[in-house]
Amino acid sequence: MKRGILIILSGPSGVGKGTVREQLFKMNDLNLAYSISMTTRKPRPGEKNGVDYFFVDQATFDQKIAEDGFLEYAQFVSNSYGTPKDKVEEMLNEGKNVVLEIEVQGALQVMHKVPEALTIFLVPPSMEELERRIRGRRTEDESVMRERLAKAEREIKTKDSYKHVVVNNTVEQAAKEIAQIIRDHIN
Amino acid sequence: MKRGILIILSGPSGVGKGTVREQLFKMNDLNLAYSISMTTRKPRPGEKNGVDYFFVDQATFDQKIAEDGFLEYAQFVSNSYGTPKDKVEEMLNEGKNVVLEIEVQGALQVMHKVPEALTIFLVPPSMEELERRIRGRRTEDESVMRERLAKAEREIKTKDSYKHVVVNNTVEQAAKEIAQIIRDHIN
Repeated sequence: MKRGILIILSGPSGVGKGTVREQLFKMNDLNLAYSISMTTRKPRPGEKNGVDYFFVDQATFDQKIAEDGFLEYAQFVSNSYGTPKDKVEEMLNEGKNVVLEIEVQGALQVMHKVPEALTIFLVPPSMEELERRIRGRRTEDESVMRERLAKAEREIKTKDSYKHVVVNNTVEQAAKEIAQIIRDHIN
Repeated sequence: MKRGILIILSGPSGVGKGTVREQLFKMNDLNLAYSISMTTRKPRPGEKNGVDYFFVDQATFDQKIAEDGFLEYAQFVSNSYGTPKDKVEEMLNEGKNVVLEIEVQGALQVMHKVPEALTIFLVPPSMEELERRIRGRRTEDESVMRERLAKAEREIKTKDSYKHVVVNNTVEQAAKEIAQIIRDHIN
């Protein structure tokens, strides 16, 4: 069986990565699979081990770090989160194309470990439009909006590290362009 | 008339600065006033100049920067936002205690210009609790949550720059503690 490819989908906060990823997963010919993260946080009601996350204790997580067992991980004072290399390998070996929808810091970690990954950075049509999306429909809290704008601008500066940059004008158009990039890559 | 004091209320993303500020403004004996920001962005329907913001063009904003007319400001690719020094001065001279509810970067700028400001940093009861608040009730988007957690941890490291650190266990308790700090300062 032909081995699958690893796809990194990233972009600044507020650009709409999650929505575009959902749209992509509706396209069955792409043969996509989610990467399931590992975490030390407690499951919430209804969450299933191996479906929502791999739930582990801190010792197991630390052991995995020591074995270089993560494609990327982040440790916070509260909890830790990571992408287990072995689970991704399994899916690739089954011929699945594995999508990591991931923030900028995690994406840079994965690129370093998997330089052949197909890397896609989603950008807003304009910074004015990103500001509108970040502000959303809620009552504007200026301090929150400023934090998010500053962050988005820093994140956009990493875009040259990606093989493809796609403008998110509409979810449909962005997903279509990304689907074509994936098809060109796997065929 | 006794001159008012400048109060800086800051804290990490997701800690609940906005809600605590609202609660504080219900306490009439504190004689609080909002600082109104200046911005280059277009007013949205229903927004009034001098109430929601001072709406100005970029040239006016740049001129104000050149005159050192801001206590703090931030310029984004999309739009610019700042706290006009003269408007704050006016309110202080009227005896009002002016509250700046502001993100960490802006707070550090203001402290530098107004070292005598009463500075208050709001922290969560624990990082686990901050993670719960950041995650909220929505379907969890792990990449977004990770971005916000990383940011909150960086922001919390600035807490030693503040004269007072208040734990936000509940809105009522935090607002009460802050109110007492303000009363001790103005009496």
